[in-house]
Order: sequence, then structure tokens, then C-alpha cells
Amino acid sequence: MSIIRLPGLVDAHVHLREPGYEYKEDFASGTMAALAGGVTMVLDMPNTNPPTSTPERLADKARRAAAKAVCDVGLFVGATNTEGDAYLPVAERACGLKIYVSDTFGSLRIDTLELMHRLFRSWAEKAAQVGYRMDGAARGVGPITVHAEELMLPVCLALSHLYRVPLHIAHVSRRSEIELIRAAKERGVFVTCEATPHHLFLSTDDLPRLGARGDMRPRLATPDDVAALWEHLEAIDIFATDHAPHTLAEKGVGVNELPAAPPPGVPGLETMLPLLLTAVHDGLLDLDDIVTRCVDNPRRVYGLPAQPDTWIEVDVDSVYELTNADLKTKAGWTPFAGQRVHGRVERVVLRGETVYAQGEVLAMQGRGRVLFQGE
Amino acid sequence: MSIIRLPGLVDAHVHLREPGYEYKEDFASGTMAALAGGVTMVLDMPNTNPPTSTPERLADKARRAAAKAVCDVGLFVGATNTEGDAYLPVAERACGLKIYVSDTFGSLRIDTLELMHRLFRSWAEKAAQVGYRMDGAARGVGPITVHAEELMLPVCLALSHLYRVPLHIAHVSRRSEIELIRAAKERGVFVTCEATPHHLFLSTDDLPRLGARGDMRPRLATPDDVAALWEHLEAIDIFATDHAPHTLAEKGVGVNELPAAPPPGVPGLETMLPLLLTAVHDGLLDLDDIVTRCVDNPRRVYGLPAQPDTWIEVDVDSVYELTNADLKTKAGWTPFAGQRVHGRVERVVLRGETVYAQGEVLAMQGRGRVLFQGE
Repeated sequence: MSIIRLPGLVDAHVHLREPGYEYKEDFASGTMAALAGGVTMVLDMPNTNPPTSTPERLADKARRAAAKAVCDVGLFVGATNTEGDAYLPVAERACGLKIYVSDTFGSLRIDTLELMHRLFRSWAEKAAQVGYRMDGAARGVGPITVHAEELMLPVCLALSHLYRVPLHIAHVSRRSEIELIRAAKERGVFVTCEATPHHLFLSTDDLPRLGARGDMRPRLATPDDVAALWEHLEAIDIFATDHAPHTLAEKGVGVNELPAAPPPGVPGLETMLPLLLTAVHDGLLDLDDIVTRCVDNPRRVYGLPAQPDTWIEVDVDSVYELTNADLKTKAGWTPFAGQRVHGRVERVVLRGETVYAQGEVLAMQGRGRVLFQGE
Repeated sequence: MSIIRLPGLVDAHVHLREPGYEYKEDFASGTMAALAGGVTMVLDMPNTNPPTSTPERLADKARRAAAKAVCDVGLFVGATNTEGDAYLPVAERACGLKIYVSDTFGSLRIDTLELMHRLFRSWAEKAAQVGYRMDGAARGVGPITVHAEELMLPVCLALSHLYRVPLHIAHVSRRSEIELIRAAKERGVFVTCEATPHHLFLSTDDLPRLGARGDMRPRLATPDDVAALWEHLEAIDIFATDHAPHTLAEKGVGVNELPAAPPPGVPGLETMLPLLLTAVHDGLLDLDDIVTRCVDNPRRVYGLPAQPDTWIEVDVDSVYELTNADLKTKAGWTPFAGQRVHGRVERVVLRGETVYAQGEVLAMQGRGRVLFQGE
């Protein structure tokens, strides 16, 4: 047994599903899964039902999170075709703006140039008034984060460049995308990006084995795409899970009748750190790569506050098999089940209090803070 | 009768259809239509059959044009999914590179980020060797011209910005597009654009009347889109026809059985100048607006040579109705038939020789020159 101490991780991309899909996940179960994964801060996506696209809905979501979360939570606002940029008055209370320019779960996809142009311009105008958030300050707005695959990626690069809006590219999955992002960074474009463990450690080669468990957006890419992510690791700012819980029945696993439209997405909060530590064990990463991409860079990209007296203790000698048993996520499964990993989260301390130990969440619901809500 | 003299016009966007569709148009009929429209230089698009996507095909097309054209002709090379950037060795012999990122007639649409990225990068690398063409010089390459509607427009802006490639946006038709182009120009992006007479003078309001005669790509836009083009006239560098001849039978006009896929596109070479002069008569433009956008700016954008001792004589007092009769284009029709216009081309002089007068083309086939072919 060899315990190391790391800062609490930030997962900058999770779907905790509340409100509207609490049978998949809620702020309690989702943040419990976070702690079990060594994550002490999550940034929650807006494609709930209803979507987090107005001041009222952001306030409602913040109340729910404040009541139930056991780790800290930042909330994205989202752009919609129907409400446009109705979120603007409370932009400072969000960790950032999420725009879906490519297909995903839910109905938030923006598909006209007119609206895309307006969303970037109005975010830039807001930033001209309040600035971009730095170091967790209460003032300022975060970046625009986009689900933008393939040709939708340069769409966002152009608008980001025109309006000098910091742009964060979620879940990069393809060679073409990481190569373009790298080129953009070399030209000085203000762009950052993230990759998920499933896009780093799985590929289309795993689909026959995974079936519906391997269906997410962006889809699993080719082995060459995966190789490109590793080649261009320096251009990847953040590792984030895109934790997207759905039940196995919804995915069509173990049911007699296949669902008409099984929802894409896989859980990830409880498996990211063991997978990354296994990559360290295998010589693909070092520990600094993890801390940079799961702590320092998410803070920098989103202007997140530091969490004082917060750390995790990990037994890096613990070797075990990931399973669907004992997961905190309501989804109750992982696409990595059966995989042998190195490294187990033993204890999580949040602001001086042990909130997780020996597989148990010890924090009371509401112990987590919701970021940027004033007071 | 009041004759004014103007420089011979440049039409920077025509489809002369040779090789492959000579029954619609060829270099003889197409350039005769040009002269009848006061146009002494045309830039011909690559979506012929086969497409102009390799050195051999460009050479073949240049031979055909040299044998038959009665006005000067520049030739675009085109990017294809199958041949990629095979045109690169002869990039200097083209007036520019055309990329179709949105649907059009033919099958040249590029739809992967990987290939789009490569096309801009390799064009920039070629330009790093030979420069961009200035003032009709034999050396250097032209801009990248794109058919890029809606969200495909910022795709091209981003790639142009990343690789510092001059970008020309063909046939802008929507408010969203001209507003984005204007914003990009204000930010110093190296972008130019063109508008066609049909997008300036027709709208969706005309569709009931025009039927299949009003079908082209980009489609006719709303009256508000048309108003936006006029509002942002200063951002429109070039007027060009997108002369795209198809027979009326192909369009499904006057035939018993409607064609399964009538081809989009309308002829335009013989009607652009009368329509623009009518706009001058109506106070929407002045003559300088025409010369700037049909002579000076096409030369600047594409680095075209001046044509010495070349001019056209126009009777600006001649008022008449455009008809389908006596057109030089093989298509034999115009969507503007029935429209009353001011201004008739009386004479065209090319390099000191009268090549058109009183409705007749006087030049021998082969009198026109093919630009940038070297000795």
C-alpha cells in the first residue's frame, strides 16, 4: 500500500441530469459518484429538462444543487433556439456558456448562422461589461464551451476569433479536430480543449464488445484518432469525463425490445482517475499530467476558485478490476467494467472534512457549494 | 441616344459547362453571351465533367477555351473528395481555387474537416513558395473562393485566418452571411465577397411567378435578406453573375414529365449590366459602384491583368424589355424575362478590335485569351 495525496480533481464536464431526468442521476447521486472518483468539483451541463437557458432555471438548478450536492458544483447556462441568449442577465452566475453545435442528447442544437453569431456577440458584449472571470472571482463570465465536431469546430473558432471570446472545445475525439486545434493554438487563437477517458482509452475496435454501452457523442473514434489524441497530448488542456448517465434499459441492454432511440452517453465520474493512474503506471502519463489537466487547467480555463484544505488520498498500489457493482451513479454501470486498473481513491477531504473514505460518502447532502451564486 | 463608355466588365463567376455539358453551354456560346453583356473577361468554374481538379484537366480546359473563346477567360481549379489537392502543381495557372462546402450542381462538395484543413494548408504552402498573384503577374496564386452558405461560411473564415489565405465568398445571399462578413472585415480578416444580380433583384416573393426558373444555389432569399445586401453594399466587393445555364426542359419547364432532380442555376451574363444600369437609373447605385465591383475589385481580388484598349459602349437611354429571344447563351432563357431595363450594350472593343456591335459577335473564335497559361 502506497498512499499519495493529490488535490481534489475538477471534472469540467458532467451531466447530473437534474431537473427532469432524476431517475438517471441527481445532484446527490452524481456528486457522490464524483467523490468516489476523487472529484471535489464538477461543472454541470445545461441539457436538462427544462434546459438551463433562463435566469429562473439557473436559480432553480442552483437551489437544487445547494440542497443536495456533496461536492462543489458549477453550473453551465445553455443557448437554445427558442430562448436564444435569455441567460445573459445571469451569465456571471454560470461557470460558462454551453453551445451545442453538433448532435447530442436533448434538443439544444443551434443550427443557424444568425443565432450562432448572436450568441458569440452577446457573450462578448457581456464580457466587455463585466470581464472574463479570473481566479474564482465573483465577477466576470466564463468561456464559451462547445460541442462542435468536425466542420462545426472551425465555425466556433471563427466566431471566437471575431469576438475575442475564450473558446473551450469539449470532448475532442478525432485526429482532424485535435490537429486543427493545435494549429489554431500555434496561431495564437484563444482556444482550449478537453478529452474524455473514453475517447483516450476506447475506440471503434471496442464497439463489438461494448455494443450499446459504447454509444456516446462524439462517438468512439478510430484507433488512428485515439493515437492522434495521445500524439497531441500537449494540446489537450483538460481531461473531463462527459459523465452522461443513462440506465442500461434505456440503452437497450438486457431488455427484450430494443428502444427506438437509445440515448447516447456513458457514466465516467468513478472511473476517470483509476484509468488515468493506470496510464501513469503504463508510462503513458505522469502524475503532473493528471494534476495539470484535472486541477490546474480547469481552474484556469473557467476561472474556478481554489478549494482550501481539500485533497484526495489514493493508493497507487491497489490493483483491481472495475465493475458495475458498488457504483454511486444511479446508472449503475461503466463501459470500463472488466478492465484492470491501478489506483484506488481511499479518502477525500473537502475543506478540512473527510467527505469520503473506504468506499463510503460521509458528507451530508448540501455540504457541497454551488459556485458563483453571490453571498 | 446617350452613349457612355465603360471598361470591359469582368464576370468573376461563370459556368461555361465545357467539357461535359456542351449542350448547355460551351466556351464559344458562353463567351459570346459575355460580350453581349459587356463582359470582356470571365472566370470559369471547375464543376464541369470531369471537374477541373488535376493538371491534365486544367490543361485540357485551357486548350478548349483558347480555341473557342471570344473574350478572355480565367479558369478555376477545384478541390474534390477523390483527388484532393491534385491541382497544386498548376495552381499558378488557375485564377483561384474553388471549394464547394455547400450543395451545388455537380459532386464537388467537400464535407470533412480533415480535407478542408488540408486544402487551405496546402494552398498556403504553395503561396509561401510563389506568393499571391498581383496585377496580373504570371507568378503567384489567386485566392480561395468558396461556395459556403450559413454555418459553412465561418468554417472558411477560420481556415482562412489560420493560414492567412485570402478568402473570397461567392454569391452571398443572406443577412446572416453579409453581417458576418462585415464583422470579419471590421476585424481585419482577409475576406472579400460577391453578390449576384438575382440575389440583389429577386427574392422568395418572386418564386410563385418564376417556378423552376427561380431555382438556384444559394436559393433566392427573403426580402429581408435582399434588403440586407443593399444595406451592406459597401461590404460587397464584386457583382458577378454565377451564370449557370441549364435548358428549360432540364428545369422541368414546358415538359410533360417533371424531371426527378431539376438542376439549380440560372443564366446571367447577358442581363447583369442592364439590371445594374437600371439600378443606377433608379438611384440605387451609381456608375462608379458598377465599375468598382465589375472591373476594379475583380482585378484586385484575383490579381487579373488589365485589358488594354478595351472598352464597352452603352446606350444608357435605351429602355426595353428583357426577353428570352436573341440570347447568345445556349440556355436561351433568363429569369428576368419581361423586366423593363435601362441601358443596352452597343459595342464592345477588345484590345482595339470591335468584337461585338449591334447585337452581333464579330470576333473569331479563339480571339479571347486564356489567362495565366504562360507561353
